[in-house]
Amino acid sequence: MIRPAELIQRKRDGEELGSDEIAELVLGYARGEVPDYQLAAFCMAVYFRGLSSRETYALTDAMIRSGETLDLGAALGRKVVDKHSTGGVGDKTSLAVGPIVAACGVPFGKMSGRGLGHTGGTLDKLESIPGFRIELSHDEFIAQVRHVGMAIVGQTANLVPADKMLYALRDVTATVDQMSLIAASIMSKKLAAGAQAIVLDVKVGDGAFMKTLDDARTLAETMISLGVHAGRKVVCLLTDMDQPLGGAVGNALEVREARATVRGDGPADFTELVLDACARLISLSDLGIDPLEGRRRAEAAIADGSAEAVWCRWIEAQGGTSDESALEAAPVVRTVTAPRSGMIERLGAIQVGNAALHLGAGRRAKDDSIDHAVGVVCLRKRGDAVETGELLADVHARDETSASEAAADVLAAYSIGDGPVAARSVLIEVIE
Amino acid sequence: MIRPAELIQRKRDGEELGSDEIAELVLGYARGEVPDYQLAAFCMAVYFRGLSSRETYALTDAMIRSGETLDLGAALGRKVVDKHSTGGVGDKTSLAVGPIVAACGVPFGKMSGRGLGHTGGTLDKLESIPGFRIELSHDEFIAQVRHVGMAIVGQTANLVPADKMLYALRDVTATVDQMSLIAASIMSKKLAAGAQAIVLDVKVGDGAFMKTLDDARTLAETMISLGVHAGRKVVCLLTDMDQPLGGAVGNALEVREARATVRGDGPADFTELVLDACARLISLSDLGIDPLEGRRRAEAAIADGSAEAVWCRWIEAQGGTSDESALEAAPVVRTVTAPRSGMIERLGAIQVGNAALHLGAGRRAKDDSIDHAVGVVCLRKRGDAVETGELLADVHARDETSASEAAADVLAAYSIGDGPVAARSVLIEVIE
Repeated sequence: MIRPAELIQRKRDGEELGSDEIAELVLGYARGEVPDYQLAAFCMAVYFRGLSSRETYALTDAMIRSGETLDLGAALGRKVVDKHSTGGVGDKTSLAVGPIVAACGVPFGKMSGRGLGHTGGTLDKLESIPGFRIELSHDEFIAQVRHVGMAIVGQTANLVPADKMLYALRDVTATVDQMSLIAASIMSKKLAAGAQAIVLDVKVGDGAFMKTLDDARTLAETMISLGVHAGRKVVCLLTDMDQPLGGAVGNALEVREARATVRGDGPADFTELVLDACARLISLSDLGIDPLEGRRRAEAAIADGSAEAVWCRWIEAQGGTSDESALEAAPVVRTVTAPRSGMIERLGAIQVGNAALHLGAGRRAKDDSIDHAVGVVCLRKRGDAVETGELLADVHARDETSASEAAADVLAAYSIGDGPVAARSVLIEVIE
Repeated sequence: MIRPAELIQRKRDGEELGSDEIAELVLGYARGEVPDYQLAAFCMAVYFRGLSSRETYALTDAMIRSGETLDLGAALGRKVVDKHSTGGVGDKTSLAVGPIVAACGVPFGKMSGRGLGHTGGTLDKLESIPGFRIELSHDEFIAQVRHVGMAIVGQTANLVPADKMLYALRDVTATVDQMSLIAASIMSKKLAAGAQAIVLDVKVGDGAFMKTLDDARTLAETMISLGVHAGRKVVCLLTDMDQPLGGAVGNALEVREARATVRGDGPADFTELVLDACARLISLSDLGIDPLEGRRRAEAAIADGSAEAVWCRWIEAQGGTSDESALEAAPVVRTVTAPRSGMIERLGAIQVGNAALHLGAGRRAKDDSIDHAVGVVCLRKRGDAVETGELLADVHARDETSASEAAADVLAAYSIGDGPVAARSVLIEVIE
């Protein structure tokens, strides 16, 4: 193991490694030839020394080469779009965006991972739909995008296997929060999954991985450059995660809210984000229209019911039932009411997320199971005026004890003052 | 593995960890509960963030607690002394120092490790003596120090096992050259081996691990503070390693030279270092005399033959033969002569070391075997005036081919100029 040690040392000493050298480490690791302790030391050296643009391209490229790749455009003869979010509390955006853009005639193909979190990931949310299959083969995935217009599936095991290994290692070696490693991890999967145009939603705020706008911008720019380097079109939305997105936080609850949004009955902030993401995706497609016209078409697809029709076809194509009443409901619903009159000055995303996590909606450790029915629905949010005793939120729980605890946590997440509260849009900035 | 990851992260972020936290990582690692990849990331974080004095104490202490320890003073009812060198080309100091101080009535007990290097370590040198046993139990070790006055043995497997594991890991993760980790590694073994007074020889120069005097001073001060913290007396000699120490470089050749020095026939620079180390060791003992008187006694033990008598008793006590002619001799001896007249301005330690390594005297990889007979004897050194054709060095080789290659390498290690060359003592500085 002389050679990996030498590469680690050169990175440690601030040198730029060659693309072949990065590939040697990453592909060697993926093949089991370079041991995990050497990659762990390498990642920590990268944490302190960073990676140049060239090294980040090489890392992304090597990770992609560790497994199979799809070329959706070639398979479908159409430009396929994809969307990715860095994740936040109540983020069910992909579920709503997919059917809307597909209804506008833009093929939408997304592969999702799982992961830890306050609530499950996109896959966990989808699995709260009875019968829904997240595991499609690459051929089934392509066929469904062709015939239904969209598919959201789990990443197959041979899509960027190096990323799976590296992420698991980074998770236990305090090397997750490094910008280049994050960007390479996200983009390797997006690029390998084969969409030609990608809208990235980088969450910013207390409830997000990126706490500051500066960090979010850096990540966005790094990911865009990786996409452009690979010949893809990428637009990045920086969006607010100081409070939960929309109202629902919890798997089946979020599926309900996503579907409501697809038919025009969604919460204002979530609808705004969904429409903006749709507008960008449509404008990046081969329809040849601009974001403004894209937004108009997205609104029309919601209004005329075509988006909800795609929703139903999509869910059924993947084996699920589109009957909303089949979604599991929690046995205990507890209301949270305003202890005073005033303006909601703050609704802490992390606190609501943790309440949902304690209810069982998310995972603390990789092997935790998820309770799809439980969660929180925030009915009032930042900037809303409330009267004493007015409903703030509903807690959906498995039992009385957890309901009481979560209700107290959710109440504590609300700060009610005398106002006024400055209006803030969910959409902070667009980088392209 | 939440907890180790959290500790790695805090070190990564520049926090000082508590003693119990350092112990948790190190002892957990030694027990196989904390995986090597987490220790690798931790060591790299330490490389960038360093360890405070308190953390270095805690690390040393935890490593000691990972195995058995000896208390030589309690076992013998006498103050026992030990000596350690950071290692260099031609360093056979312990072999000569032990018999001399033992002859002066100071019990000398040393445990040695192996390791990579241009020539073998102290243990490899001793193994060039037919029959010599380096593996004594702790009881045998103590009994021999009591009855013979000295012993040099291999570290038992349960002496600081955490250091063995950690060093092997650092070796392949580019985390060897970190001052606190080096100091803790050396001192944990010295403290666990139980001597009350320790003389440390920190080599400085091209052929040493510490290339600069500043680094050597920092290492010396760190090791002294670890010794003092553990209630031991420690003196540190900073000594020259720009050229080989003494003349012989190679295992049996060094044993011969050490024995010659014990009877007063050693090379000047090596004799000087040996006498100084003996003087310090004797002054740290329970004889209650100062270094000057210590040196006088060491010289007397050499002159009156008592040191050589201890040498013979010691070698025989460990199963070896004290008959010098029994040492294996190399079949081919090639002379290296001066290509011009002048002053020797430089004799590169690393170059001579590499010549010996290529002859087979050392190990490139852990499992390489050592040829005890081969090596180089430098008969002329820095500051010597030579005439064209005069003997510079002898190469002792296994065959003609390797002899020729080594002779060329040794010749290239000599720089002969017009002088003058400033006189430099082997002893650069003493830190106590």
